[in-house]
Amino acid sequence: MTERIRDFLRRRREDGPCLVVDLEVVRDNYFKFARALPDTRVFYAVKANPEPQLLKLLADLGSSFDTASVVEIELALDAGATSDRISFGNTIKKERDVARALELGVRLFAVDCEDEVEKIARAKAATGAEDVQVFCRILCDGAGAEWPLSRKFGCEPELAIEVLEHAHRVGLEAYGVSFHVGSQQGNTEAWDQALGSAAMIFHTLAEKGIHLSMVNLGGGFPTRYLKDIPAVEAYGQSIFEALSRHFGNRIPATIIEPGRGMVGNAGVIEAEVVLVSKKSRAEDEIRWVYLDIGKFGGLAETMDESIRYPIRTDRDADATTPCVLAGPTCDSADVLYEKAPYPLPVSLSIGDKVLIEGTGAYTTTYSAVAFNGFPPLKSYVI
Amino acid sequence: MTERIRDFLRRRREDGPCLVVDLEVVRDNYFKFARALPDTRVFYAVKANPEPQLLKLLADLGSSFDTASVVEIELALDAGATSDRISFGNTIKKERDVARALELGVRLFAVDCEDEVEKIARAKAATGAEDVQVFCRILCDGAGAEWPLSRKFGCEPELAIEVLEHAHRVGLEAYGVSFHVGSQQGNTEAWDQALGSAAMIFHTLAEKGIHLSMVNLGGGFPTRYLKDIPAVEAYGQSIFEALSRHFGNRIPATIIEPGRGMVGNAGVIEAEVVLVSKKSRAEDEIRWVYLDIGKFGGLAETMDESIRYPIRTDRDADATTPCVLAGPTCDSADVLYEKAPYPLPVSLSIGDKVLIEGTGAYTTTYSAVAFNGFPPLKSYVI
Repeated sequence: MTERIRDFLRRRREDGPCLVVDLEVVRDNYFKFARALPDTRVFYAVKANPEPQLLKLLADLGSSFDTASVVEIELALDAGATSDRISFGNTIKKERDVARALELGVRLFAVDCEDEVEKIARAKAATGAEDVQVFCRILCDGAGAEWPLSRKFGCEPELAIEVLEHAHRVGLEAYGVSFHVGSQQGNTEAWDQALGSAAMIFHTLAEKGIHLSMVNLGGGFPTRYLKDIPAVEAYGQSIFEALSRHFGNRIPATIIEPGRGMVGNAGVIEAEVVLVSKKSRAEDEIRWVYLDIGKFGGLAETMDESIRYPIRTDRDADATTPCVLAGPTCDSADVLYEKAPYPLPVSLSIGDKVLIEGTGAYTTTYSAVAFNGFPPLKSYVI
Repeated sequence: MTERIRDFLRRRREDGPCLVVDLEVVRDNYFKFARALPDTRVFYAVKANPEPQLLKLLADLGSSFDTASVVEIELALDAGATSDRISFGNTIKKERDVARALELGVRLFAVDCEDEVEKIARAKAATGAEDVQVFCRILCDGAGAEWPLSRKFGCEPELAIEVLEHAHRVGLEAYGVSFHVGSQQGNTEAWDQALGSAAMIFHTLAEKGIHLSMVNLGGGFPTRYLKDIPAVEAYGQSIFEALSRHFGNRIPATIIEPGRGMVGNAGVIEAEVVLVSKKSRAEDEIRWVYLDIGKFGGLAETMDESIRYPIRTDRDADATTPCVLAGPTCDSADVLYEKAPYPLPVSLSIGDKVLIEGTGAYTTTYSAVAFNGFPPLKSYVI
């Protein structure tokens, strides 16, 4: 929470929940990444928050952009990024979207299997594009991350060697390796194992005359929710040490893709208490607190209670009691915290405002178009 | 899947997934409910699918509407429903939304605690509305339902007595009791226990001179996914028997709120295979199939793999193999079926179309505004 956000909310008069993002915090975050990893290019993960003003700020600061779709590529271009500062980082792309990206000037693509390489090769031929680079994503176990990882993206390192060889064979530049250590990664050492795999891939391919030159370190940099997190400097130091350990004095070019770490702590959602109730008169009956925002209004990352946001009220000096926290829709799955109830002031009342901090990333775009007739989350960038 | 939907899709040329809803199926479903429960008023749950043409059809057929918000009330009115055919069925309402509903002529409100009664009483006084009816929702264990139920809505029956007494005391009509047996309820007997509780509440309040007159039987009527479901007639029969058992020859007025049961089987989503891949060369490595629709593009009910949709392809005569099925976004949580892999044709290939059946309910409005830059699910009503 910043003074600027507080001022903005004090003057706000409309009904309904809203997110306010303070660009000064984003600017600070950008410089922290740039300083902590001075030899690494920053590709902001647009999906975390694609607000045009935010993208423009980052483009002006010199950031590059990791995009998931043609729409996100267009947003990055509109914000002033040149196409050489854009990566099409989604491993799941329609061939016509690859062609469109090539037409827009993008030359850097993620893959994790030979069929995806084939699409890019065909689209390259169809569009006449040159110097197209691909990096292959490898699986990473994600231990230490708070947002569920799956095996959805990437392949085993052994297969990545074949995929990159294939890319080389069909006339693409086998550019490097990427991985993702898992979102909201609290362990600064989490990059080490995957960097070991990356070095093995570099080495094996070099013996075949294919020289990779880039490691994409992905995202995973956390934002502060309830628990303290390591400073960005600690991540930078640990990553640099792991790079040195595995690559010796031939450290490759590196890029990072912070999303949450770049904008998470820059945003605050203001919401309203719609109802406080109990289900029976029993002494030990838990209190239910219902807000005007829930899982389908922007707080999708409370799924499985993965992300636990800090919640502030004007009554935080009062005694608290554990509450089930739920959203306003007629959907029984629209409950934010129940397995681990959330301590909230006993005095919290209908009509009170609550501030949900650390919500600058992965909120607005997750919100449903009109579930139960509720409009998507409003967003202000200041 | 109907011939009309097949024809529509054959002529379709745009890119991207879409839902097509056949109004003739909705019309059939409406008449099935009306015939199976002839003395019961049908309140279509607008949240299941609020497409204007669909609401208009149902309004023309004589349906009433269960709404979750002022926006849904306005949709029902726009579709031609008079305000006496609208219930504000959300137990979590802002007082200003209650007032707005009263101004729009709505007189029927759900509550599950005294504070919600207070809001309605105050809004009634503020707007000068008369004859305002409330029904109190009671908890129901939801055994037999496929979509997770929680204790989010409703209160214990003992507390419902106090809530309705309070409503009576503050000048509202204590009109009845509601409950919900859980979505996609496969057990036709599931209404029995809650009807027993409802009868107890009727009886207890009658002794205090408060005469309830309505039981809202809620929704929960299933649509056919992969497993067969009982016919609507079986539900009607079982509910009628339970009503007779608990209320004798003084059966109250009843209403039902079908949503999924009304539109689920009327809709089919057409999607496209974006990628088929494996994570390693291991013999037993599972195949991953990625579609251009996922959890954030309308298939939110695959959360925890709750709802398992029938998926048809043009290759269904070929041998199948278990696949992990995932969506197109750069989000590791965007996986539809993984714990229980989905059998799909071995020959299924990139670019193939797939048809996801039973998707007329709870798809379009769940879809995210722009997650990863992907547009919300398109919808056509034919």
